Amino acid sequence: MDTKNIGLRNIEVADTRISYIDGQKGKLIYRGYDILDLTKNSNFEETCYLLLHDELPTSDEYVDFKTELVDARIIPKQMQINMGNWRKDADPMDVLQAFVAAFGGYYDEEFSTKEASYSRAMNLIAKVPTIVSSWHRIRNNKKIIEPDSNLSHAANFLYMLNGEKPDLEMEKIFDICLILHADHTLNASTFAARQVASTRAHMYSAASAAVGALSGELHGGANYEVMRMLLDIKTEENVESYIKEKFAKNEKVMGMGHAVYKTVDPRSQVLKELSKRLSEKTGQPWYDITNRVEHVTAELMKKTKEMEIFPNVDLYSASVYYMLGIPMDLNTPIFAISRVAGWAAHIIEEKFAEAAPKPMLYRPKAVYVGKYAGPQGCKYIPIEKRTKK
Amino acid sequence: MDTKNIGLRNIEVADTRISYIDGQKGKLIYRGYDILDLTKNSNFEETCYLLLHDELPTSDEYVDFKTELVDARIIPKQMQINMGNWRKDADPMDVLQAFVAAFGGYYDEEFSTKEASYSRAMNLIAKVPTIVSSWHRIRNNKKIIEPDSNLSHAANFLYMLNGEKPDLEMEKIFDICLILHADHTLNASTFAARQVASTRAHMYSAASAAVGALSGELHGGANYEVMRMLLDIKTEENVESYIKEKFAKNEKVMGMGHAVYKTVDPRSQVLKELSKRLSEKTGQPWYDITNRVEHVTAELMKKTKEMEIFPNVDLYSASVYYMLGIPMDLNTPIFAISRVAGWAAHIIEEKFAEAAPKPMLYRPKAVYVGKYAGPQGCKYIPIEKRTKK
Repeated sequence: MDTKNIGLRNIEVADTRISYIDGQKGKLIYRGYDILDLTKNSNFEETCYLLLHDELPTSDEYVDFKTELVDARIIPKQMQINMGNWRKDADPMDVLQAFVAAFGGYYDEEFSTKEASYSRAMNLIAKVPTIVSSWHRIRNNKKIIEPDSNLSHAANFLYMLNGEKPDLEMEKIFDICLILHADHTLNASTFAARQVASTRAHMYSAASAAVGALSGELHGGANYEVMRMLLDIKTEENVESYIKEKFAKNEKVMGMGHAVYKTVDPRSQVLKELSKRLSEKTGQPWYDITNRVEHVTAELMKKTKEMEIFPNVDLYSASVYYMLGIPMDLNTPIFAISRVAGWAAHIIEEKFAEAAPKPMLYRPKAVYVGKYAGPQGCKYIPIEKRTKK
Repeated sequence: MDTKNIGLRNIEVADTRISYIDGQKGKLIYRGYDILDLTKNSNFEETCYLLLHDELPTSDEYVDFKTELVDARIIPKQMQINMGNWRKDADPMDVLQAFVAAFGGYYDEEFSTKEASYSRAMNLIAKVPTIVSSWHRIRNNKKIIEPDSNLSHAANFLYMLNGEKPDLEMEKIFDICLILHADHTLNASTFAARQVASTRAHMYSAASAAVGALSGELHGGANYEVMRMLLDIKTEENVESYIKEKFAKNEKVMGMGHAVYKTVDPRSQVLKELSKRLSEKTGQPWYDITNRVEHVTAELMKKTKEMEIFPNVDLYSASVYYMLGIPMDLNTPIFAISRVAGWAAHIIEEKFAEAAPKPMLYRPKAVYVGKYAGPQGCKYIPIEKRTKK
């Protein structure tokens, strides 16, 4: 096959109004708004409204939207019971994929209209945090904590997870993390969501597939790997020798470099600040260690390969989540808690976009006859006459 | 965006050794074998072996393979209990998508090796029929029937579904249906499976996403629509006026025409024969009605648009499944019972293909600035100053 198609990296498959990456300038735009503007002034709920509805809400719209979201947080009791039957060491992403698909089994809604898709989108954004936190409580044999309708989306999740209401600074920091991860054009999970939606499958079905794609270590698993690296390194003094060894072995330093951004990933800028604030607040060393990883890697890259390299979104989010007290294996589910907003917006766009060209079921081609040629012209031989090749 | 990319119809995204469609000659090839050769001489179990292992098994290999498949048919008791908590009118495809994903919660296997993927593939092929039939029994408040290890894959499913062992002819007919639907290169569900697997997500995760894609009405739902049409038409005499009305309204006749085959779809040839046999056996009129639909549509197409049109796989499979006593809303799950073999083979190829170019995580591009332009340069305005557009 034509190598320029590998991974579809250079193939434009859809028009979108949802988000835009300017890789040269290091900008990420949601519906026309720079994410740095949003992290400074907005919050996750409002950002969800923006992603779904193409504009920021008025006061009345915002109140209605928040109410709908808060009301939809609870998951069916029976779902909690079903979770209790899973292996306690099951992967939280497996749990999430299965239970997002299972919404179809508990909610009987008309789903072929755009309005119904919006209502399913609200259900998803509201319930994904509840699934993640319920599972975390269950696997630790702790009592499930019901959502608190007085808390924001960010604060409520941390409360359901830990049983303690976070202070305002913790809440704000986590809220910013949610804003930052909410969309990123056609990353692998969002494309999986659109691919499934292109067959006219419903919102839960498409979002469940997206969770599956996000669970892959090449996609959502990177900030878990970063944190493992930081824990390995332990102290700032160890950074240089650790990174040098990585370079010597020709191994990738996790959290550094991005396929699209040719300069600083704007999300990493914000997360770096948050990591610093949290290190100061908690007295933990992770910001300093991460910062040293960034600089040692950049210097070595320049020296050995004459290339510039910048931190990506995962480098600083690892320590931020860690210092927020989030268990490491929930990093990817937390990614999903935020990204589900983008998935929902993309699923709606895929199914109901009003612009030409209209999206169409994705059905690409495969090459059977080529370098990696499939067998040809075989004739069926009765089994007793076959011999081992 | 470039309209030639829409739906990726002309984009080659992967090399494959699994199957090949010759749309001009009307041939479908699995690993070098014409499916007409396989439907005549092979069976579904052997075809699964072929799809997974790139060659037909020797006698010893076949015995081992069948034993492994038979042993893996049972699903966990707890899964049956969980199914009991779903809405009785839930879509069987929603059930299937959720419970395929849920395998990750019940089976704790190493999944990063090729060998482990093969073992998960066996688990999937063996258990998907059990999920479908268990759900069908549960929703009808009937006792679940455990798999019978003396029966073939085809016979066992019909037995678990209906509680009666099918006669040899019924078994053979259903077995041929399973062979015919087992793979079809990069259709939307198979591409969804490969897309999710490209992130290194595991087999169950990728297969669950494929079930989601298959559930869409543009993909797996077509033979259900065909049967609804046949039931609407009722008698052979009504066919002509019914189809003429469709043409007058410029509506598509379900089951006719295919994007890839420019001549007879070889699967429809075989299914036509099976439909005829079953009509003769059961005394039901569906073969004659379907046959008339085929010819009236082809004649009208020639007359009005000077185009040739041929039946696709769905035209005759609808009546075949109906006369096998399979409830119409299980047509798509039955498609999955067969296609899961192809999905598994493609997931393994995507993750472990030894040829160059190696597959890579699919991350296509979207166009934000174009005809369907996204908003640009927006500035955040405090909520109290916003007005409704």
